[in-house]
Formats: sequence, structure tokens, C-alpha cells
Amino acid sequence: MKKALLTLNAGSSSLKFALFDADFGNNPLASGQVDRIGPEGTLRLKRADGKVSTLLPGSLRTHEEALQTVIGVLRSEFEGLEVAAVGHRVVHGGTEYEAPVRLEPEIVTALEAFSPFAPLHQPHNLAGVRAAFAAFPGAPQVACFDTAFHRQHPFVNDTFALPREYFRKGVRRYGFHGLSYEFIAGELQRIDPVLASGRVVVAHLGNGASMCALQGGRSIASTMGFSALDGLPMGTRCGQLDPGVMLYLMTEEGLDAQAISDLLYKKSGLLGLSGVSNDMRTLETSQSPHAREAIDYYTFRIRRELGAMVAALEGLDGLVFCGGVGENSARIRAEVCDPMAWFGISLASKANEQNAQVISDASSRVRVMVIPTNEELVIARATTRIIFGDERALA
Amino acid sequence: MKKALLTLNAGSSSLKFALFDADFGNNPLASGQVDRIGPEGTLRLKRADGKVSTLLPGSLRTHEEALQTVIGVLRSEFEGLEVAAVGHRVVHGGTEYEAPVRLEPEIVTALEAFSPFAPLHQPHNLAGVRAAFAAFPGAPQVACFDTAFHRQHPFVNDTFALPREYFRKGVRRYGFHGLSYEFIAGELQRIDPVLASGRVVVAHLGNGASMCALQGGRSIASTMGFSALDGLPMGTRCGQLDPGVMLYLMTEEGLDAQAISDLLYKKSGLLGLSGVSNDMRTLETSQSPHAREAIDYYTFRIRRELGAMVAALEGLDGLVFCGGVGENSARIRAEVCDPMAWFGISLASKANEQNAQVISDASSRVRVMVIPTNEELVIARATTRIIFGDERALA
Repeated sequence: MKKALLTLNAGSSSLKFALFDADFGNNPLASGQVDRIGPEGTLRLKRADGKVSTLLPGSLRTHEEALQTVIGVLRSEFEGLEVAAVGHRVVHGGTEYEAPVRLEPEIVTALEAFSPFAPLHQPHNLAGVRAAFAAFPGAPQVACFDTAFHRQHPFVNDTFALPREYFRKGVRRYGFHGLSYEFIAGELQRIDPVLASGRVVVAHLGNGASMCALQGGRSIASTMGFSALDGLPMGTRCGQLDPGVMLYLMTEEGLDAQAISDLLYKKSGLLGLSGVSNDMRTLETSQSPHAREAIDYYTFRIRRELGAMVAALEGLDGLVFCGGVGENSARIRAEVCDPMAWFGISLASKANEQNAQVISDASSRVRVMVIPTNEELVIARATTRIIFGDERALA
Repeated sequence: MKKALLTLNAGSSSLKFALFDADFGNNPLASGQVDRIGPEGTLRLKRADGKVSTLLPGSLRTHEEALQTVIGVLRSEFEGLEVAAVGHRVVHGGTEYEAPVRLEPEIVTALEAFSPFAPLHQPHNLAGVRAAFAAFPGAPQVACFDTAFHRQHPFVNDTFALPREYFRKGVRRYGFHGLSYEFIAGELQRIDPVLASGRVVVAHLGNGASMCALQGGRSIASTMGFSALDGLPMGTRCGQLDPGVMLYLMTEEGLDAQAISDLLYKKSGLLGLSGVSNDMRTLETSQSPHAREAIDYYTFRIRRELGAMVAALEGLDGLVFCGGVGENSARIRAEVCDPMAWFGISLASKANEQNAQVISDASSRVRVMVIPTNEELVIARATTRIIFGDERALA
């Protein structure tokens, strides 16, 4: 084989990757992720034929070691592999980066300045960038930002009602999951251009979860947020929270910022409310009434925010589900949609059970769809475009 | 005159009062408020004929002194005045108090336990109670709670996605402005019983602001909240805020709970965003572009939350505006309603300009109304009912 392109998505204790060749379609040559970077790290590799292996390599204690192990595994899979470029998911591009950018040392430094806005994500993303620079000193690298897709929001969606100086200092709603929304907007344009020109809400329901209001394919509002905490409840993150609760945690419970951060990022959401699990598959099969209530809260908040997004869009033509839960849980989609009949939403039960592409019935004024998202492909396309001038010019 | 009933609503530096006689209608014999309790306190008195006087008494440094001054003024106005009962607005009744209650010393103690949930309101409410016990040792007293009207909410509206123990400890959405919503629900039943049996959103837009979703006259959801901070932006309060912003204020700005509380309760909202004023009348006449943006944010968030309330109600039959801004600002009502045409809302411009009772036009699927609220009357009625067994048995 000749040249290939690597995408990396580095989290606090994970490193997701995908390898694309010159003629990439929607599927990479291989993809996978390192989980639990540390003494118990594992590496899962999925080949293009769908075969999955889980490896337990000896040393995965840092992002550098994790990346070295990934490279070793990929080189043993693909003889003569040459990584021609690396594309990175970087959660935060502030207001400056409205598009992907080729990474130079001074840009990495500039991106470090956004770490206070995303302390649990940005430093790890940049650790992945540094590891890749060390591993592929000759390969150009590109950062793709989860915030970039939302940079055309009107002021009213971006601001909070705080004194003005906070907006200037960067305390504003940025919006995240932008790579996913960009992919969905592109797919929608390809599949149903008439719908794509209208008012569409995209619900990205995965480990993280948010919703985006698309008007003619452009994001005009999002449920998330200054940080990755706000909006919908998530696996372990709280979603919307009364600021008075934060004051209560500080004054009555004596919690400091670190303890509150741990509570809200890691112990809340579906896990906290159910006391059972952060994983929707586990909750759906649980007999615990608290698991049931956690699901009820999850779908109630999605409906509530869907109503809010419809108000922002001044109407609704389409609703798209994506992300692990959005693509695979017919039950969650039904529990979101069934009480939304007044909004013109009517599901076709069988199509919904089958995770079909269109899951609304003929009477539905709103077209409801399931579109598997592919953030890696968005990164791969952007990287190829920026480095080689053309999305298909890798070879 | 014979016996009369006094209602009190004690804030941090204010004391609102109204005096009703046995045959009270919608208008009290007199009402008014002490503002800026402290060295510069003033007392405004409004008589039943509409005449208003502003007095600058010498000593208004505490709630006790303020109440003594009010009593002195009322006694000079109404010869032989005998206060037969006192009704208090108390912001927080926790989950225990689902209805007004006659105050006994042990109940006042129990209500003090809710002060951590409403630290800027509850202690002042109870200071008013203590001042009234001292001033009228023989008169029975009743507490009416802003939370009580919301106590039948489904679990999904009351909980946050936090670990379970927090819900048990009282960290949950209580809902406020319940006295106002109770009044509106009663008026609606009287004016338009068919609409009252349907799905109605009430927007209480005053110094504080929130929205309530009424189903058949009962509250099923509210935008506010564990505290008086959440939901809509207000005069000086922030409304909805990403919890990540709180962490940022703690870690990056080094603010402690007191400083954050001051910021979010007193320097944010319309005042913070406009840099001009917390008063909508001032903002509406201001030439500042920031005042314009503050109004835009205010109406955008109302529309967004209106969409969310409609999702919770699974539809919308009526929308009622009340509170100082809701009752008097045709511009705010129009800016809320005009972009909500998809929701079936269509205003009659002239009726709206006139603050008419019904301001939607004939084509509007949603009936839009302006109903002046009257929290004092709700307190007076409840107090009479509890103390004398009948709302009209005061004499």
C-alpha cells in the first residue's frame, strides 16, 4: 500500500483512531480505540471487513505510548504503511477557528489558551497532537474543531445574561459535536436536499449528547454550551443545572471546584440518576425503577430541548437522530417522538424498530430520520482537503 | 372600620404590604411598599382611590422598624384599625408544604431549614414573619408559599441528573411564583373555563420572571427551578447558565460563593447584558445597542422556554402574560409572539397595544391573554380561609 491518512480523537483516557487510504469511502481501512489509558489499557481494532480484535498491550500509560502501540499494530496489519497526514479532533477552537487548520507549533500554543474553557477535553486533545508530532515528525497535521460548525450563531444564542465583560473574555455558548453535525448536514444535503434546505433538528445522542438546530444546513442554535456539561443529560454528565445548585454545593456541602467538577462530569447524568449505569443498553434492560426514571428524564429533557430548538427555528421540517443511542435505540427514539404528535411528528413503528433511514410515517409533517454519524470521515476529508488541496488527492 | 387583614411580602431590603377589609374585592383598602430598608428607606402608600404618596420616614433600618412605620401610617389613615390576621408570602415551603399554613413557632423554625435553598429570600420572608408576630401578638398569621402550587409536578420536571442522594437532600426543582400562577389559574377558570381546562403557558414577567405550564389549571412544569436564578433572564439575575461557567468563575477567576452569588443575583440579567438598566422601561427607550441586545436575549429565551413548555404540555391552547413587564409592555409581548406563528400564535396588534385581555386575533389557534396578577389577593383569600374558615368571613 501507499500513503494513508490517520485520524485521532484523544480523550482523557482514550484514543480513538481511524486509518483511511487514498480512495476512502465511508469506511476506513481500520479503526479502533485505546480505552483506559493507564495500567489496564486495552486496544480494540476493527478491520474494514468488520472483524474486531481486542488487544491488551503491555504499555499504554500515556497518550504517547498509546499512539506508539496503535502505530505498531497498524504497521503489522498494513505492510509498508506510510502515514501521509494526521487529522485531529480538537474540541475547542474558540471564536478564532471557524474552520479546520493546519497545525503549526504556534497554533498548538494558541489552542492551549482554550483549555480553561474545556479543561476535561482540550488538554487531552493537544496531548494527542503532541504525541502525533513526535511519532510522525514529517507528516502534516490538521485540527478539526467541534466548535467551528456553530460559529455563525446569532448573538442571542451565544451569550449568557452576564455582565458584558464575560462575553468578551470568552464566557459564551460555543456549541460542540460540530464534526458530527457537519457530517449529518452533508449527508442530508446528499439524501434529501429539499429537507436540507429547511428547518432540521439533529439530536446527537452518544456518550456526550446535544442537539443542533439547522436552518438550510447551517447551525443557528445548540443545546451545548460553554462547556460539555450543559443541555441534555449524558452518560455521566449532568446537563442543564440550576446555578443555585452550584452555590448550594459550595456553601452547604463545602465542595471545591475539583469536587464539583468530578461530581458533574463523572458521577451525574444517567449514571447518577439511575445508580445503575451510564450505558443506555444496560438501563434499557434493567429492572430498577431508578433506571426507568433515568430514561424518562433523558427523553423528557430531549423533548423539552426539541421544543426549544423548534422555537429557535420558528418551525420544524425534519428531525435526525445520530450517535450511539440515537442510531441504535428504537425505544429512546419512540419515547422522544411519541409525545410530540402536536409538533407534527408521527413515527412508523416498524421502520423505527429496524433503525431505518426514514422512521416517520406518511402522515408525519416532520420527516424523522436515523443517519449514522461519522466524525472520523469529516476529519479525514478536511485533512485531505487542507493538506492535498482536494478531498480525493491523497494517493 | 372594623377588622382588617394585612398581607406582607418581605424581601431583602423591601417590605410590600396590602390591607384588605372584610368585603375585599380585587382591590385592597391600601397597599404599598417600603424600599431600600436602611438609612435611605422610603415608604410608598397607594390608597384605594389610586392616590399614591411617598413618605421618607426617619427610621426604616430593619424589617421591624419598617413594619412599625407601615402600621403607624395605616393607623393614621384608618381610624380604629384592627389587624385581625396577617398573611405572609414565604418563598419556600420545601416539599412538605403543599398549601398555606397557619404559622406557629415550630413551623417558623421548620421554615428556617429551607433558607439554604433560597438564601436571598427565605431569611427576609421570615424576618417579616417575626416582625409581624412582635407587632400583632394576638393576631393569627398564615404563610403562603411560592413553591406550593408546583408540588404536583411529575418527577422528570423536578429532578436534576445528579446522584440520587441529592434529590433526597432537597436538591430539586421547586418552582416559584406560585402565588401568581394560582391567581392566574383562578382568573382563567372564571374568565374562560374551556381554555382553563386545556394546555396553557403562563409567563410571569416581573422583577423575577418564570413560566409555568398549566394542564387543566394545574402546574406540571416550570422554568424555575431549585433557586430563583434559573430559567428566564431577569432584571439582575442571570437565568439559565451552563454549570461549566460556574466552574470557570471558581477556577479561572478565583471567585468564592459570595462573589458568584452577588454576580448572578445582582449584576447579571438585563442589567449585566445591557450595561444600562435592570428596568425594561428604561431599556425600551434606550438608544444603546446593548440595551437592544438585552431585550433580544430576553425575548429569545422566553420563546425558547415557551417551546420547551409546549413540549412538556404536548401542545398549546393558551398563553397568558402577567407581571409588570408582561402586563404593560406591548413590545415585549409582540417580540415574543410574532416569531411563534408556527406554534399557532397570532397577535391582534391593536388589542396588544391596548393591553387588552385577549390580544390574539381570530385566526390564532392559541388564545393569548394579558391578565394582571394579584399575589396579595391570593394571600388574603388563603389567610381568611384558614383563619376564619371562609374567604368572606372576615367581618
